[in-house]
Amino acid sequence: MLLARVCVKLKKSVLDPQGKAVKGALTSLGFEGVNDVRIGKNIELILEDSDITEASEKVRMMCDKLLANPVIEDYTFEITEVQKR
Amino acid sequence: MLLARVCVKLKKSVLDPQGKAVKGALTSLGFEGVNDVRIGKNIELILEDSDITEASEKVRMMCDKLLANPVIEDYTFEITEVQKR
Repeated sequence: MLLARVCVKLKKSVLDPQGKAVKGALTSLGFEGVNDVRIGKNIELILEDSDITEASEKVRMMCDKLLANPVIEDYTFEITEVQKR
Repeated sequence: MLLARVCVKLKKSVLDPQGKAVKGALTSLGFEGVNDVRIGKNIELILEDSDITEASEKVRMMCDKLLANPVIEDYTFEITEVQKR
């Protein structure tokens, strides 16, 4: 079994309204010195594969087809072995 | 300036409907061997602080008050120094 950790973030050039909202909320809660907030997705996949190279190719296709929007998002991922659950 | 990376995940005991939906979509796209999918939030904060210990305490309070729901979510974070943007 393999665990794929995918991190999906908005491209730097893309405005992050959710981040802006959180920044505003933190400021109104009294937190000072919050310069910027950016929010992304963390996706953990348990895969029945055993070959990390094959699994990497598979996860890349999953990201390109579904998990990330290539127009506005970038993604990174890492794959590690895990014991069966 | 400091960069705080906060990772918010649903507690293991909590059902993840969003994860289930993504798992179903991946399967219908023809991806086999997807055993489980869990989705969390990745929050990056740029702080004007310079003291990492103080900033850690501040980020912990931000998580407890706003960024994570303590009933259903766990959070971890790391803080690193960054050059001014």
